[in-house]
Amino acid sequence: MTAKPLVALAMGDPAGISPELTAKLVALDDLRARTRLVIIGDRRIFDEGARVAGVTPELTTVEQGADFRAARGEVLFVDLRHLDPAEIEQGTASLASGKFALTNYRHALEFGRDGRVDAVCFTPFNKQAMRLARADYDDEIAFSAEVAGLKTPASEFNVLGELWNARVTSHIPLKDVAGRLSAERIHRALRLTDICMRNAGFARPRIAVAGLNPHAGDGGNFGREEIDVIAPAIAAGREEGIAAEGPFPADTVFLRAKGGAFDAVLTMYHDQGQIAMKLMGFDRGVTLLGGFPFPICTPAHGTAYDIAGRGIASVSASQAAVRLAADMVKPALA
Amino acid sequence: MTAKPLVALAMGDPAGISPELTAKLVALDDLRARTRLVIIGDRRIFDEGARVAGVTPELTTVEQGADFRAARGEVLFVDLRHLDPAEIEQGTASLASGKFALTNYRHALEFGRDGRVDAVCFTPFNKQAMRLARADYDDEIAFSAEVAGLKTPASEFNVLGELWNARVTSHIPLKDVAGRLSAERIHRALRLTDICMRNAGFARPRIAVAGLNPHAGDGGNFGREEIDVIAPAIAAGREEGIAAEGPFPADTVFLRAKGGAFDAVLTMYHDQGQIAMKLMGFDRGVTLLGGFPFPICTPAHGTAYDIAGRGIASVSASQAAVRLAADMVKPALA
Repeated sequence: MTAKPLVALAMGDPAGISPELTAKLVALDDLRARTRLVIIGDRRIFDEGARVAGVTPELTTVEQGADFRAARGEVLFVDLRHLDPAEIEQGTASLASGKFALTNYRHALEFGRDGRVDAVCFTPFNKQAMRLARADYDDEIAFSAEVAGLKTPASEFNVLGELWNARVTSHIPLKDVAGRLSAERIHRALRLTDICMRNAGFARPRIAVAGLNPHAGDGGNFGREEIDVIAPAIAAGREEGIAAEGPFPADTVFLRAKGGAFDAVLTMYHDQGQIAMKLMGFDRGVTLLGGFPFPICTPAHGTAYDIAGRGIASVSASQAAVRLAADMVKPALA
Repeated sequence: MTAKPLVALAMGDPAGISPELTAKLVALDDLRARTRLVIIGDRRIFDEGARVAGVTPELTTVEQGADFRAARGEVLFVDLRHLDPAEIEQGTASLASGKFALTNYRHALEFGRDGRVDAVCFTPFNKQAMRLARADYDDEIAFSAEVAGLKTPASEFNVLGELWNARVTSHIPLKDVAGRLSAERIHRALRLTDICMRNAGFARPRIAVAGLNPHAGDGGNFGREEIDVIAPAIAAGREEGIAAEGPFPADTVFLRAKGGAFDAVLTMYHDQGQIAMKLMGFDRGVTLLGGFPFPICTPAHGTAYDIAGRGIASVSASQAAVRLAADMVKPALA
C-alpha cells in the first residue's frame, strides 16, 4: 500500500481569515482522504478559527520533534503555544500576527527540508505584518529559499484549474523589467516551468510565452526584446524538447490559453500574468513555489481582513492548494 | 424634431471581414432607427460583402461632394470606385487593401473635420496593409489627428458595455513607459477621460487610476512612480472635481470596476488595460478615439483574416461602435 502524503499546513496571519480557513480545511473529508495534515500553529488560535468556521475537527497534538510519519492520529497538530488570541486585533496587521505566521512557516519549511513532511502549505500571510516581524522580508520565495537552504532557482507559479502561469520577473519596479530579461534567464524560467509541470502530472506541458511589448513588439516597431531575447530563449527550450511557443501578444495569449490551446503562459513581469489570472478566477487560484525539493502551495488570495471572523470565507482556493501539493508528491511505498 | 446623427462609416480592410461587417451594419434596423449612415468605399466591394453576409440592404449612391444632410435616402453610399474586388486576395494584407481602407478613412475624417457628418466609424483595418499604403503609418490616432488637423491631445479609449479603459501611454516599448509618465501627462489623460465620458453621458464618471508597479509599488518597495507622479496627478484631478481614485494595484482594479465600483480605469500602459479588457469581452469591445471634435469609433477586434468570406463574423462590436458614436453626438435641431 502507499502512504498518504504528509502535508505540513502552517497557520497564516491570525488577524484575518487564515484561522477560519485552517479549521475548514481540516474538516474537509476530501482532503483527509488524500493527505495527512500536520497543522503548525497555536491551538487557541486554531480553536477560535474553528468556532468562527462552525466546525469541530478532531486533532492529535504532537511534539514538534515527533516522528510525524509514525505518529497515530488522522490530523496532527504541532502546538507551538506562542500566541494568545487576546493579543490579536482582528483585521489589523501587527508584530504579533507577523511573528506568529513567520514562526509557523519557518517550522513547516524546516520539516520539509528535513524530509519529515512531503509538502508544505500555508494559509494567507499579510505582507505588512511579515515585515514588522522581519524587516528584510521580501517575499515567500526569498524566505523559503533561505530556510530550506535552496541554492538553485525557484519561482512562483499561479495555478487556476488546469492553467498555469509562470513569470520571469516578479516583485521589481516595472522600469527594471526589460533590463532584467535575457535569453538565458527566460530559458531558465521555461525549463523550471516545464519541470514543475511534469512533476504535477503534465506529460509534455504546452507553454505559451508572452511578449514584453504591446502587440509583442509588432515586428520590432514597439521594442526589440521579442526578437533579441525571447525568441532565442524559446528556440533553446524547443531544442531540449520543451513544447514552448511564442512570443505571443500578452493581451490575447490568455484568451487562447483559456480556450485550451496551452497548459501554461510564461509572462515577463508580475502584472502581465496577475491581471489575467485574477480576472479569470480570483477566488480559486493557487500559488505554487516551484523549484524546491518539496511542493509549497498557498491560496492566491490574501488575508481578507474585511471579512475576518465572520465565517464566510471561501475555502475553495485553500482546498485547491492542498490538493495540488498532495498531487505533486511522488507516491512513496509505506 | 431632431435630426438623426449622420455617421460616416469608412469601409475597412477588404481582405478580411470588414466588407461583411459593413453590409451587416447597414441591414440593422436598430442602427437605421438611430442614425443616418454614410458609407464610404467601393460599391463592388460592398456588394461582395453583402453577398457574404446574406443581406440586401438598400443604398442611395451620392457624390462625395454632395450635401449629405439634405440628401434623400436612408443609407447613403459614397462610391469612390477605386478597388476592383478581383485585385484582392482574401486573407492577405496587400498594398491595394491598405490603400482602399486608408482612402476611405481619410474621406470620412475630412467629412467629420468639415462638419459634413457628426461622427466617424470604420470597420477593422489591417496594420500591415496600412503600412504598405503609407510607410510612416503609426496608428489611427496619429493619422486621424493629422487629417483632422487636431492640435490638442487625443487618446484611445476601450469601451466594454458601461466600462471604459483609457491609457496614458500606448504603442511604445515597455522599457520606455516609466520614463514617459509625469504627473502632468497623467493629469491630462484624466481630464481627457473625464471630458469624453461626460460627452458620452456620464454625469460624473468614477475613474480608477491604476498603479504602474506590482502591488502599486507596495508603498515604494517596488518602484516610486505611484508616490512621485500618479498620486499627485490624481490629487490635481480631484481638485478640479474629477471623481478619480487610486492608484490601485493593476491586478485587482479591473475586478473592482467589473463589479461596478468604477466607470473607468485609467491605465499606465497598453497591455495593462488590454489584457483585462480583452479577457472580459474580446468580441464586444469598442475602441473610441477621444479628443477630436467629433466621435470616432471602431470595433476593438481586428480583420479576422482567418474567417474572411464565410459570413460568420459577429457584428456585435461594430454595432456597439456605431451606437456609441451616435450617442456621443449632441442632439441638433433639424
